[in-house]
Amino acid sequence: MDDIITLDYGSGGKKTSRLIEQYIVPAMDNPALAELGDGAILPGGEKLVFSTDSFVVSPRFFPGGDIGKLSVCGTVNDIAMCGGEPKYLSCSFIIEEGLPLGELEKIIASMAAAAKKAGVQIVTGDTKVVEKGRGDGLYINTAGIGILKYPGLSPRAIREGDAVLVSGTVGDHGAAVMLARHDLARGEIVSDCAALNTLAAALLSAVPETRVLRDPTRGGVATTLNEFIEGTSLGIELDEKAVPVRPAVQAACELLGLDPLYCANEGKLLAVVPEERAEEALRALRSLPEGESAARIGSVTAAFPGKLVLRTPLGGRRVLQKLTGAQLPRIC
Amino acid sequence: MDDIITLDYGSGGKKTSRLIEQYIVPAMDNPALAELGDGAILPGGEKLVFSTDSFVVSPRFFPGGDIGKLSVCGTVNDIAMCGGEPKYLSCSFIIEEGLPLGELEKIIASMAAAAKKAGVQIVTGDTKVVEKGRGDGLYINTAGIGILKYPGLSPRAIREGDAVLVSGTVGDHGAAVMLARHDLARGEIVSDCAALNTLAAALLSAVPETRVLRDPTRGGVATTLNEFIEGTSLGIELDEKAVPVRPAVQAACELLGLDPLYCANEGKLLAVVPEERAEEALRALRSLPEGESAARIGSVTAAFPGKLVLRTPLGGRRVLQKLTGAQLPRIC
Repeated sequence: MDDIITLDYGSGGKKTSRLIEQYIVPAMDNPALAELGDGAILPGGEKLVFSTDSFVVSPRFFPGGDIGKLSVCGTVNDIAMCGGEPKYLSCSFIIEEGLPLGELEKIIASMAAAAKKAGVQIVTGDTKVVEKGRGDGLYINTAGIGILKYPGLSPRAIREGDAVLVSGTVGDHGAAVMLARHDLARGEIVSDCAALNTLAAALLSAVPETRVLRDPTRGGVATTLNEFIEGTSLGIELDEKAVPVRPAVQAACELLGLDPLYCANEGKLLAVVPEERAEEALRALRSLPEGESAARIGSVTAAFPGKLVLRTPLGGRRVLQKLTGAQLPRIC
Repeated sequence: MDDIITLDYGSGGKKTSRLIEQYIVPAMDNPALAELGDGAILPGGEKLVFSTDSFVVSPRFFPGGDIGKLSVCGTVNDIAMCGGEPKYLSCSFIIEEGLPLGELEKIIASMAAAAKKAGVQIVTGDTKVVEKGRGDGLYINTAGIGILKYPGLSPRAIREGDAVLVSGTVGDHGAAVMLARHDLARGEIVSDCAALNTLAAALLSAVPETRVLRDPTRGGVATTLNEFIEGTSLGIELDEKAVPVRPAVQAACELLGLDPLYCANEGKLLAVVPEERAEEALRALRSLPEGESAARIGSVTAAFPGKLVLRTPLGGRRVLQKLTGAQLPRIC
């Protein structure tokens, strides 16, 4: 077999079959894929959560992960944030002619490992190949189905006085990818790319009154918190010194001219919980390694309707808007 | 709002929100999209079919359709071919910086119209933007969920003596797209791009003994029929003069050096049914406008194990292999 992807691999003919049968199906190690039709049949019976994301991260490999791991974790997380237990994923590749097959193989192995770790099965897929110069190596779409376990999570459930929590340090993914893109990678800055379904389930089973969960990916914590409150009569006050940021990430962000509050995260969740359950929620998050640096970072207030306000360490206040423009293009 | 897509539209910030809220959600006209989280919650209760496809067709607009219509029909058809009743779609855009917004709007309207016609709802989505030169205007992924209505469809159900049917003329989509790509479009050659769920349901309710269904897209009829029998002890004999091909498509294929049997179709199905139910199956197909030129094109035989053999009008026989190489890159 040639060791780069040529247009033939997208023809739907022999090479496409070989790519799927030799590289993709064995790596996924999943009997549901063996039939190789265009769809997978799933057992049913409960309310479902359905989500999709395309991944275009550049570079494809970065400290702490790669586009394959990201594509599995990203969709798993979207389902978990809706209160779903992720079960099945589809995956679809848009490959640029010339991609080394060895690289695709590594990425597929990484998807398989991430799926196994998250407890989900990749059950159906698709492969397209585009000409050189019409893509950028590899784009991956995943869609996912989960079973709804915790209904009712919604920004509309947020109430005055609620506590705003984050499950760990902020900005790691954005900083790691941007440094990798500029060939400035440093050992201590690693993407947080991880599946959050176990962490979300731990929180939701301890504190079923949780109002809303969201993973602050593109646009970061500041954009996601804005989405929670925009158009409502409630605001959020964020305590800058309570937001956990690794010193190396803070330094890298300064170097790159970025704000960690707008940097993408790929293994963190934001939760809004009733004030009186905040301690219990933090205990639940901290009980797992991926939530060990969970912190309360703010409160919901009626004082600034529709606004996210940052309280600085010196006691000043400024409004944080949603991200405008492209701080970090192709971060996920 | 600017009238071309810039990288900002993929930032996850304000422009992304505006794109989704002004262009995508109103066009889809679907209350399930209104919440705008990262996932959709679906009612459950039955066995499901799950499928995905990415669409990279070039050009994006062609006689009879566009990438948007194709992206809805393609996934609807994959689900229908598995015996599923398609219900919900996700859609994910990978947009190249510089795409005119007006064009995106047209494509979204076309997706909405195709979804409405097919009776499916687009319930969740995602948007990414890549730099100029890293894509080709627009790629679309759709994933879909359907309810399994006709279990057991599988190439493994095929038996000696079965009849092979096609629901209409062959090669229309491939010929239309190739002509459009070379600026040779002619009025009489139009893609067959259409949803097949109603046609499939009509066939399966009339002939529940149907062995297998498949829509012969990339690689065409010859490749799909090869997939039915490869590695088995059965072969298929195809009767060349029974295969319906529009004269204009035949002529265009000759001009372009293509074989209609390897040309993509986007609104046709192949069905294998028991010999004694072939007439009933044809009646069911022909009862709907999209199946009016349905024909029996071949039979399953033990005489050529694993092989697809074409009987020519002069009585000769030749083996048709799966498509090798890329006859028609980026046809869907």
